[in-house]
Amino acid sequence: MANVLVVHGGGPTAVMNSSLYGVIQYAKKRGEVQKVYGAIGGSKGILEEHLLDLLTFSEEQLKLLLETPATAIGSSRYALEKEDYQAMVGIFQKYEIQYVLLNGGNGTMDTCGKIYEACKGTDIRVVGIPKTIDNDIAVTDHTPGYGSAARYIAATTAEVGADVKSLPIHVCIIEAMGRNAGWITAASALARKKPGDAPHLIYLPERAFCEKEFLEDVSQLYKEKGGVVVVVSEGLKDRDGVPIVPPVYRSGRSVYYGDVSAYLATLVMKELGIKARSEKPGICGRASIAWQSPLDREEAVLAGEEALKAAMEGQSGVMVGFIRKETPDLSYQMEVRMIPIQEVMLHERILPKEYQNDRGNDVTEKFIEWCRPLIGPKLRDFIDFQEYLHT
Amino acid sequence: MANVLVVHGGGPTAVMNSSLYGVIQYAKKRGEVQKVYGAIGGSKGILEEHLLDLLTFSEEQLKLLLETPATAIGSSRYALEKEDYQAMVGIFQKYEIQYVLLNGGNGTMDTCGKIYEACKGTDIRVVGIPKTIDNDIAVTDHTPGYGSAARYIAATTAEVGADVKSLPIHVCIIEAMGRNAGWITAASALARKKPGDAPHLIYLPERAFCEKEFLEDVSQLYKEKGGVVVVVSEGLKDRDGVPIVPPVYRSGRSVYYGDVSAYLATLVMKELGIKARSEKPGICGRASIAWQSPLDREEAVLAGEEALKAAMEGQSGVMVGFIRKETPDLSYQMEVRMIPIQEVMLHERILPKEYQNDRGNDVTEKFIEWCRPLIGPKLRDFIDFQEYLHT
Repeated sequence: MANVLVVHGGGPTAVMNSSLYGVIQYAKKRGEVQKVYGAIGGSKGILEEHLLDLLTFSEEQLKLLLETPATAIGSSRYALEKEDYQAMVGIFQKYEIQYVLLNGGNGTMDTCGKIYEACKGTDIRVVGIPKTIDNDIAVTDHTPGYGSAARYIAATTAEVGADVKSLPIHVCIIEAMGRNAGWITAASALARKKPGDAPHLIYLPERAFCEKEFLEDVSQLYKEKGGVVVVVSEGLKDRDGVPIVPPVYRSGRSVYYGDVSAYLATLVMKELGIKARSEKPGICGRASIAWQSPLDREEAVLAGEEALKAAMEGQSGVMVGFIRKETPDLSYQMEVRMIPIQEVMLHERILPKEYQNDRGNDVTEKFIEWCRPLIGPKLRDFIDFQEYLHT
Repeated sequence: MANVLVVHGGGPTAVMNSSLYGVIQYAKKRGEVQKVYGAIGGSKGILEEHLLDLLTFSEEQLKLLLETPATAIGSSRYALEKEDYQAMVGIFQKYEIQYVLLNGGNGTMDTCGKIYEACKGTDIRVVGIPKTIDNDIAVTDHTPGYGSAARYIAATTAEVGADVKSLPIHVCIIEAMGRNAGWITAASALARKKPGDAPHLIYLPERAFCEKEFLEDVSQLYKEKGGVVVVVSEGLKDRDGVPIVPPVYRSGRSVYYGDVSAYLATLVMKELGIKARSEKPGICGRASIAWQSPLDREEAVLAGEEALKAAMEGQSGVMVGFIRKETPDLSYQMEVRMIPIQEVMLHERILPKEYQNDRGNDVTEKFIEWCRPLIGPKLRDFIDFQEYLHT
């Protein structure tokens, strides 16, 4: 008999708890596991020995994990010190923890690699479960958490698009999360059901943002439509890599910038004299259970199961990866493969050029094909009688 | 045989189309109506004779109205001139329109009253269907559109609350719509399932905002919790009635203010040195079908039906009102009553004192009891293992 430890790191997603559910279910199924500890409050929870055995909860309680946003065991952005890793090994041994599963993004995978190094020479296995709404983890085709964030931005952009079309009096700028990688911003394109649908413009952080071209594009579309929907990444930068919005606050090494959406809405009003407003759902997007992608949830559960399975089979220093299979009928098929953790540690994956259009104000059809299965079932059809008026 | 005209005015809601559905269904049921015209693009659509007969659409298409946000016939904020009202009467007669139904908020009810006056002496009946997310129409207990906006802000605040609790590193300020009336902001309180749940502070536009008290409250809560969720109205004003955020743009008589949420997040960072961020779902909230309140939708359909029914029974110059009945078991029961349009024209209903707490940073239990039935079924239960750790 051996114990399992699950640790959550960084910002939550809509399906982080689903991976935790997968770990717990797999542990129950295998029956060789005595306890599944959750580190309460992230990596600091290990050092403080805030460990809670999750096998003591009822199946009814555990099922709630599938529809609970954020993380039910807490998370942290606590920066670990060198000596912390050695201390951890002692704690794992004290609690007879043989399988350590770290669920997180790039930063957490770095921690995962370091814990793996620290555990060398013991029989403790360390496996990473990928998680990030930003989808910026290397090697894996995509990451649990992304599909739901993508579904949220697509559905929300479609709804806001209907609103703006029905009362076409302004330019509406929606801000999407993802400071360096434009995966979420790009997914807003999935809102479209036919040509001309919102979003009308998409600006990714991978491209140097040109205010002049932006104003030209907005002005042109406003003339045509009266109502324009623009989706922008929160991390837009200029030609020199400097954020287009000035900082609002500095504290030590941390710099806090203003909102890109509000900045651009004001720019449109000042430069074009067109009414503009901004929407910044922010955390609402990553915490939304209503727009959880069913596929994303399923894959998140699978990632948890596969992580524990790999660890119990003796693997260590690896992360669960998703590899998309090429199929003759282009249907979506995915297989799990363990990826050596060194290959993913702190490598940030951005949106490739082939997914960006030439002008830098939209995505390509290729991106849409890649993204479509991840957001789950087709979004609702809306009716718009305005389209039937022949004047 | 006679024709019906439906006109939409002002900003959309998540159930405005449901009222339109109610009108169409009632017209079909009664069978004395030949055509149900939609004025495409709001009141301007009447003057431009952009009228579309909605009875020509299939039941399958019409059913989509119940889950289509915004307005499927378009809306406007077009300011009508005196001569427009006379022109309208001619157009009604030309199209054999006997029943004119205006769906909108305070501004539209004003228009409704003026059209009613213009139609005096004819057999044209004019009835108002109330609609606003802001819930600021007088006399009626509440307004279709509000329940869904309230459900959205409550559910979203609960989700963001789970996120902030699981990674308690910042103060999170959510901005709610409603510039002068705090009904939506107040509804965020419905997110709470137990004491201590988010939202931790609520600031209404009915109360003069005091930055000093706000900072005291935030500081105290941050010490206790590490993560604080604050919900604020977009229209917070100081003791002198001046918006707390400086204007970002002026154009003629229009003044555009910055975002309250971003302003307060920066204030918290600068004055308290605490990390803070802002979320401003804005239009996402009024366009959300996922968080449509089933009761709100049902009542919106009913409002449409009752409006046409009243008109066909000879009433005119009235608005459909909802009167809440007092019941021995405190269960929710509502009855429809026609309200003379003069009683509601341009009267803005704000949140009464009895629904505001003494310090001006929360609502009262009385408000919660009033609001609870309107948002529909109980929100999801979340599981939080952090609460089970006994250290």
